[in-house]
Amino acid sequence: MTDTETRAETGFDSAEHQARLKELYRDFEAAGMTLLWLTREGLMPFRSQPRAVPHLWRWADLLPLAARSAELVPVGRGGERRAISLGNPGLTGDPYTTPTLWAAIQYLAPREDAPEHRHTQSAFRFVLEGEGVWTVVDGDPVAMRRGDLLLTPGWAFHGHQNVSDAPMAWLDGLDIPLVAETDQGFFEFGPDQVRNRKTPDRSASERLWGQPGLTPVALAGTRPASPLVAYRWAHTDAALAAQLELEAEGLPGVLEPGHAAVRYTNPASGGDALTTMRTEFHRLAAGAATRRSRTSASSVWQVFDGTGSVRLNDSGHQLERGDVIAIPAWTEFSLTADGQLDLFTFSDAPVFEKLNLLRTEFS
Amino acid sequence: MTDTETRAETGFDSAEHQARLKELYRDFEAAGMTLLWLTREGLMPFRSQPRAVPHLWRWADLLPLAARSAELVPVGRGGERRAISLGNPGLTGDPYTTPTLWAAIQYLAPREDAPEHRHTQSAFRFVLEGEGVWTVVDGDPVAMRRGDLLLTPGWAFHGHQNVSDAPMAWLDGLDIPLVAETDQGFFEFGPDQVRNRKTPDRSASERLWGQPGLTPVALAGTRPASPLVAYRWAHTDAALAAQLELEAEGLPGVLEPGHAAVRYTNPASGGDALTTMRTEFHRLAAGAATRRSRTSASSVWQVFDGTGSVRLNDSGHQLERGDVIAIPAWTEFSLTADGQLDLFTFSDAPVFEKLNLLRTEFS
Amino acid sequence: MTDTETRAETGFDSAEHQARLKELYRDFEAAGMTLLWLTREGLMPFRSQPRAVPHLWRWADLLPLAARSAELVPVGRGGERRAISLGNPGLTGDPYTTPTLWAAIQYLAPREDAPEHRHTQSAFRFVLEGEGVWTVVDGDPVAMRRGDLLLTPGWAFHGHQNVSDAPMAWLDGLDIPLVAETDQGFFEFGPDQVRNRKTPDRSASERLWGQPGLTPVALAGTRPASPLVAYRWAHTDAALAAQLELEAEGLPGVLEPGHAAVRYTNPASGGDALTTMRTEFHRLAAGAATRRSRTSASSVWQVFDGTGSVRLNDSGHQLERGDVIAIPAWTEFSLTADGQLDLFTFSDAPVFEKLNLLRTEFS
Amino acid sequence: MTDTETRAETGFDSAEHQARLKELYRDFEAAGMTLLWLTREGLMPFRSQPRAVPHLWRWADLLPLAARSAELVPVGRGGERRAISLGNPGLTGDPYTTPTLWAAIQYLAPREDAPEHRHTQSAFRFVLEGEGVWTVVDGDPVAMRRGDLLLTPGWAFHGHQNVSDAPMAWLDGLDIPLVAETDQGFFEFGPDQVRNRKTPDRSASERLWGQPGLTPVALAGTRPASPLVAYRWAHTDAALAAQLELEAEGLPGVLEPGHAAVRYTNPASGGDALTTMRTEFHRLAAGAATRRSRTSASSVWQVFDGTGSVRLNDSGHQLERGDVIAIPAWTEFSLTADGQLDLFTFSDAPVFEKLNLLRTEFS
Repeated sequence: MTDTETRAETGFDSAEHQARLKELYRDFEAAGMTLLWLTREGLMPFRSQPRAVPHLWRWADLLPLAARSAELVPVGRGGERRAISLGNPGLTGDPYTTPTLWAAIQYLAPREDAPEHRHTQSAFRFVLEGEGVWTVVDGDPVAMRRGDLLLTPGWAFHGHQNVSDAPMAWLDGLDIPLVAETDQGFFEFGPDQVRNRKTPDRSASERLWGQPGLTPVALAGTRPASPLVAYRWAHTDAALAAQLELEAEGLPGVLEPGHAAVRYTNPASGGDALTTMRTEFHRLAAGAATRRSRTSASSVWQVFDGTGSVRLNDSGHQLERGDVIAIPAWTEFSLTADGQLDLFTFSDAPVFEKLNLLRTEFS
Repeated sequence: MTDTETRAETGFDSAEHQARLKELYRDFEAAGMTLLWLTREGLMPFRSQPRAVPHLWRWADLLPLAARSAELVPVGRGGERRAISLGNPGLTGDPYTTPTLWAAIQYLAPREDAPEHRHTQSAFRFVLEGEGVWTVVDGDPVAMRRGDLLLTPGWAFHGHQNVSDAPMAWLDGLDIPLVAETDQGFFEFGPDQVRNRKTPDRSASERLWGQPGLTPVALAGTRPASPLVAYRWAHTDAALAAQLELEAEGLPGVLEPGHAAVRYTNPASGGDALTTMRTEFHRLAAGAATRRSRTSASSVWQVFDGTGSVRLNDSGHQLERGDVIAIPAWTEFSLTADGQLDLFTFSDAPVFEKLNLLRTEFS
Repeated sequence: MTDTETRAETGFDSAEHQARLKELYRDFEAAGMTLLWLTREGLMPFRSQPRAVPHLWRWADLLPLAARSAELVPVGRGGERRAISLGNPGLTGDPYTTPTLWAAIQYLAPREDAPEHRHTQSAFRFVLEGEGVWTVVDGDPVAMRRGDLLLTPGWAFHGHQNVSDAPMAWLDGLDIPLVAETDQGFFEFGPDQVRNRKTPDRSASERLWGQPGLTPVALAGTRPASPLVAYRWAHTDAALAAQLELEAEGLPGVLEPGHAAVRYTNPASGGDALTTMRTEFHRLAAGAATRRSRTSASSVWQVFDGTGSVRLNDSGHQLERGDVIAIPAWTEFSLTADGQLDLFTFSDAPVFEKLNLLRTEFS
Repeated sequence: MTDTETRAETGFDSAEHQARLKELYRDFEAAGMTLLWLTREGLMPFRSQPRAVPHLWRWADLLPLAARSAELVPVGRGGERRAISLGNPGLTGDPYTTPTLWAAIQYLAPREDAPEHRHTQSAFRFVLEGEGVWTVVDGDPVAMRRGDLLLTPGWAFHGHQNVSDAPMAWLDGLDIPLVAETDQGFFEFGPDQVRNRKTPDRSASERLWGQPGLTPVALAGTRPASPLVAYRWAHTDAALAAQLELEAEGLPGVLEPGHAAVRYTNPASGGDALTTMRTEFHRLAAGAATRRSRTSASSVWQVFDGTGSVRLNDSGHQLERGDVIAIPAWTEFSLTADGQLDLFTFSDAPVFEKLNLLRTEFS
């Protein structure tokens, strides 16, 4: 007996039935109640169905816009940062890059300061180019230079100062959408100017935690976020180069042929550097390509150097230095390098790994 | 030099400046870019600012509506369940009880079946009243009776069958909003009828894992979700009674004076029974009250028995058996018992605990 | 060039060489220094080479000896316990059952008390027969009856009182050798008589932690040793019976055909009930046999009920109720049941699991 | 009623009683059984009572003895290593430095090889002086130089080759006593000569894991022992210097005033570099002293550089470069620096931390 037969037999399709049903649905609506049988497919799709779409922003477009804003808008208390977020075209109404991630270009004019504050959102800065800015994290001034990753773990006070005569722009990554949509946001102002104006080459964080495998005994004990807040380009570059060299020697290290990858990790736990975001750097040797894959994590990528192309579902794009790509969950994705191709990426994978929800498929 | 002085000096308030700014903002909009300095307060509030509102549904209203739908709407493939969700009045447009949680009343008519399916969403059923339904979890028939909590961990196949001549209604809890908003949803149909029509008193899950502190050696090894899928009322009641008795003997156990509470946990890990939702049962002795508190987790409560009142921010409500309360993040909340007051509750606390975001305050 | 050639060429075998070598070895000895090249094989054998030997004690021998001591030796402060340990014949000079484990028969005469003390050693009692004794663990009186496992986690105060007119004997298990040989022993006297002379049917520990999967919210948070200190025979028996029934239904649960096994675990963590000792109960259906295996853990087994035989390396033994077997590391071991065969066992496996040293082989 | 009165009244001191007792004790002895009431104090002392004694060996004595052995004894298959262990004078009969630790001086003559093998024992080499030897760990050649710590995790194949024209000696640390006394030892020969004769400046291990906070994505996932097997002096020295400099700047880092300390950790987990041994390096600023402390862990220290003194219970000793100190459990211990004092140390603390047995007291 099919559903249709059942309905016929029981009068489920009669006019009277339809009238009573209409009345019932009105009553449900009045009570703010929703019927799963009418909404199941949208609420619980057969597979991940993001509203967000794959998207690519050109650095060549972003940087001039940011520069123009520096001429017209000061950085100050309240607005806090000259940060301009990359809104996913699919997520209309919200300035979100993916449903959990917020990527922005931040711009600091010469000799400019961004005031101190702290928030529960985790944040990082990744530097495509330039130098001259120090970000002060819980009082510790941390130099920012091309290729560096700088962390601001949740609830750490931080401000920035540009001590140079050149402007500086970089990529900001935060978990703003995740925190906003789940009501976990708390925020506090700090001093209007950074509390420590020193400009050391190496932060206290690096001096304490920046020697490989060495833990200060006084500070041992796993922390949720990394006590190391600066990951320098020279180390990242060396680690990636080593993986490709070891591949040539027939030794393990690369993720797949011609594809080196490092994850920025918390030296006190070996886990992700930030609790809500995974940060990695990938290098493809000239001519190499990644397998096509899709994952339920969403991610953002920035081309650091080199040329190549990206495939997002059925559409391909040439990549240039600085380009930023948003990749929603379950987007089929692959990279191909022309010359050597270097990319920074961050994703929400740790969230779903911890919740036992993360899925990844290779095709 | 204040911001205002700076602006004056640099012409930041001139007509020309305003014109250029307008043009810039148009260009940002065209590029899908959003300025943090104009949106910071909404995106990153000083403290958790849920759109969701505290809300109370009366069981006396919910049950008749569910019963009417049973007369008019069959349960079948596609719709899957006669479940009616309690939409938070603040979350217009979405059938969500809180930003992460979905609470519904589910209703099964006499002799009715709900077909098998599975999904990445975690689910549970809590039974306010009635019996006669078996939920079949990965082929294991699990009896549902008043006071029981029954789990459906993510990706476990499950269907329900009512073998009795009476209808049965219960509270469904799922992490549908969290999974939907973060694109983690996957779903699969199973058989149209439950695969195992036996109606044992005790499920295989309970026979293997339902003896306190005893782990089957063959099945040892921590699992993300609980291998025990039924928590029986007799045990819950005994545990709560014991805490209050021990309090009278001067021994530890209660959460605060007159307030007993148990958490449903995974016997293979001691952690929460489900990876994304915390489930607990609370009992207040006659006349007892909880401290006022607020937490960044959101929660749903159902009155199981007894009478008393709840305070949600500045508003108080009398409670009756079966009433369901939605409590958004950072709502000031307390309970007071008239006679003994028993409540079931679930929340999203494990998500934010794992992400190091959970905050709780007592006042 | 072989070693022999090298030696010849370089005069390594000359008389002068021998004389100098002898002198050198004398000097080393004087300095308390030992040459690895002369001791390597003993110190670092090709495979585990216990001095301990497999051994079997007959309950029929142990019990009368213990009873005689009750007539002649009181229990009191200093001696503390009428416990008689089973010394492994291979471990001459030390009263150890294996290199890490200490098994003893403890005997309490009618109306007798054993005074309170505490120690860093972890301990448990397993009851072969009898009842009437309450062990008081950190002030909580815990009834002891046939088939029960009672824990005394390290550094918990404990004493025993026999409130009955019959003597009672049981198996004591401790990690005395491990703690002694590694200098981790600390010990403190408590009151001369147990501090709480109540004789409740159920301890506070069981009332708080003895409902399957239910954790007192006020006491949540993983503890190193189990907060549940009594595991009752009715539960153990039910869990074992269920595994064999489920096997008959074609469902998972047993460890191997006809072989049910449960591990006593800490409900707050799912891990072993004690930090240094694994405790388990095994049941073989009539006619069933275990696979031959060997492991680098050492263990002690006691026959709880039934008849059968054990094979220890190349030697077989009939088993009777109460018999105790010591099984050193890497002993080839198997059990065969005549009728249904029930055994309690404890081992040092958690120690070596945590140190990544545990090895097990099936043959 | 005292014990004495009880005994009198019940005839516990009569001649007949004595005779029966003597007979009983004979029977116990024949059965290999030991009475706890006669052995309790030895078996379960009030506080840690090591047989091992605090001891100090002079490098000036050790090195010449090792050198003489190189003239007289080749390194080869079977003996495996020219390693000479420092036997604790209290642990007569066993070549153990403490009950769990084995410290030795290992010596390799110019152009000499030590053959490959592997064992379950964890090992490390710490280099006081010299260079020219590569230790090959699972095929990866690792340079050994002054101040470096080189790991051989359990069951990793390893051999050594001296490619220089100078001999080289270093400190070997292993958990041989722990593994031997608990029967966890397994051992296997590898090639007679090291399988990889390359002499790279940096091992593959360092190239993959030696960048601070950077994890090769392909190799992520916590491992029990460290994938990084070389910790270079330059890093250790920099980390210690930074702690003292930060102290001068008023920032945290040092363990106590003038006392810097780093722990060698597994970058994949943040835990101890080896599963059974903690390895650390300590630096005392000129004139600084440590608090007096004692711990239930046993340890071995080697003076790397500088001068100062050590206090072991009530006895003080001047320290010279290379001196080795054995510190049994619960020894009161403190260090005082004359000039800057640098020491390497290893202990069994991780074993007892994992078993919840570790105790430490400051006085």
